[in-house]
Amino acid sequence: MQIILKNPLDMHLHLRDKDMLKAVAELSSKSFSAAIIMPNLLPPITTIEDVISYKKRVDEASKNTSFKPLMTLFFKNNYDFEFLKSAKEHIFAIKLYPAGITTNSQDGVNSIDSESLKDTLEAMSELEIPLCVHGESEGFVMDREKEFVPIYENLATNFPKLKIIMEHITTKDSADILDKYPNLYATITLHHLLITLDDVAGGMLKPHLFCKPIAKRYEDREALLNLALNAHPKVMFGSDSAPHPQDAKESCGCAAGVFTAPIALQVLVELFEKHSKLDNLQKFISDNAQKIYNFEPISKSVTLEKKPFIVPDAYGEVIPMYAGEKLKWSISSIS
Amino acid sequence: MQIILKNPLDMHLHLRDKDMLKAVAELSSKSFSAAIIMPNLLPPITTIEDVISYKKRVDEASKNTSFKPLMTLFFKNNYDFEFLKSAKEHIFAIKLYPAGITTNSQDGVNSIDSESLKDTLEAMSELEIPLCVHGESEGFVMDREKEFVPIYENLATNFPKLKIIMEHITTKDSADILDKYPNLYATITLHHLLITLDDVAGGMLKPHLFCKPIAKRYEDREALLNLALNAHPKVMFGSDSAPHPQDAKESCGCAAGVFTAPIALQVLVELFEKHSKLDNLQKFISDNAQKIYNFEPISKSVTLEKKPFIVPDAYGEVIPMYAGEKLKWSISSIS
Repeated sequence: MQIILKNPLDMHLHLRDKDMLKAVAELSSKSFSAAIIMPNLLPPITTIEDVISYKKRVDEASKNTSFKPLMTLFFKNNYDFEFLKSAKEHIFAIKLYPAGITTNSQDGVNSIDSESLKDTLEAMSELEIPLCVHGESEGFVMDREKEFVPIYENLATNFPKLKIIMEHITTKDSADILDKYPNLYATITLHHLLITLDDVAGGMLKPHLFCKPIAKRYEDREALLNLALNAHPKVMFGSDSAPHPQDAKESCGCAAGVFTAPIALQVLVELFEKHSKLDNLQKFISDNAQKIYNFEPISKSVTLEKKPFIVPDAYGEVIPMYAGEKLKWSISSIS
Repeated sequence: MQIILKNPLDMHLHLRDKDMLKAVAELSSKSFSAAIIMPNLLPPITTIEDVISYKKRVDEASKNTSFKPLMTLFFKNNYDFEFLKSAKEHIFAIKLYPAGITTNSQDGVNSIDSESLKDTLEAMSELEIPLCVHGESEGFVMDREKEFVPIYENLATNFPKLKIIMEHITTKDSADILDKYPNLYATITLHHLLITLDDVAGGMLKPHLFCKPIAKRYEDREALLNLALNAHPKVMFGSDSAPHPQDAKESCGCAAGVFTAPIALQVLVELFEKHSKLDNLQKFISDNAQKIYNFEPISKSVTLEKKPFIVPDAYGEVIPMYAGEKLKWSISSIS
């Protein structure tokens, strides 16, 4: 049994920099046609020069001409119209982080309200630059995304021409507002379709499943599955695959992030097959994103066959999700 | 500034066995007058011979004649009246674990209902053997204790003469039923008075703060603080201090348990002082437990003074809570 995925897209990817970039970029570039590359380096990507130079490093590391890194800027409220106009040809979107909310987000925005962000967001609206948002408050870890919902609603209402992507949604609350605002969209990760807090902390504590936003409750996962499996047209796959060295995960203070890039397609096929929704995977993995972002990716066909794939224990010093476990599907060819 | 604690009691302590027992027993025996020693070894303590032999090992390891280990049996539903009658002089209480709910609880009870446990619990009632309970369901990790509340209520109602101790309560739900049933009591740990899930998983993931039951929400911690700081007469200190080697905590599957035994008194004084409730600490740390269990501990005076204490980075291979941090109070003398 085979399935062919056309132009798979990862609409939320962390490739980091330097040695880590060199270690992981190829894994995504092999099986994806394009990926949105997150800008939360240290220091973050905030200038056109940063974007150009980071893209060059990504291209070199990905060693793959049939892969397009879709570059982003790290949102700063001092970006003016002229800057954004010049930046537009180099970027695909701008990513907004609340300050300090996740890995390397210290330089993010302290107060996200439509009044203080007005000039920048109006310029982005006019220039048709999409806004990707890490939507979490500073509240209790299980409530952070729920508490951010009014901020999404406020932004969506006040900037109706701005395309706003709720990144890596993890709750029913976020799923529920998706259809209320025409300009709201969402990405969903692989791991949030699979795990709940029980998998992270219900038995032994599993640092390799620790991520931000943290995995939530069963009813939340159910809401995400409902969107993804039915290929809701406003929802795209974004792995949020985030590599950390093993010793940064298995330590007295474990970094947030699940590494799924090299196994995402195989596991998605297994998941959609299990729910008898294989017909919808093409939309979730590529077509929806093309429509939402209005772009045409490099042509790439990934053929998967129902043949066991043993996930490596590690990719370099990074432990992937399902390390050492047997998946039902493997990638048999890419063209 | 000094404070003297008379006969401090730890009404819930894990000492484990073998090398770990030798490494940690002395730390509790030095500063506590007595402690209830949990029976969840591998295999668990289920016979009188087990109790006698484990007590001997604890006595040897604790190297301290002014410390009394209060031994327990691991609840099995086949304990009959005659067995319990013979066991009574050797034990202080019996600890009931739902099967598989925490460390070494595989041999626990699968279904906790008053009908199936009737014979054993009636025998315990008649013999006045207290029942200590790990009260968690098999549900979602944040709901497990809440879901166990009806079971506590059922047991308390059906066995009105049985002294039931809700061990290491972590939620407002448990706090709320304490006064509804005359035969319900509770222990509270140090760490559940201090942390919430935010401390475990809100920033970096902190394996050394991972415990079962998992730390809950702010309103839950508030309810526990309210009980402890006001020395509610049905509430006792029980550290649930649980040593694990560093490599069992900082790994791809981290064991549950926070190691607080050697720092508990110092931190409790700091906490009660901060809330201007120092006058109530004696009751929480000893007097309440003496009344609830109706016993008289070995006389011991622990003097603490307001002088910084730097918590060691490790006790042997065990990382304590607040490792390397500075506490405000230290133990100056024990007599």
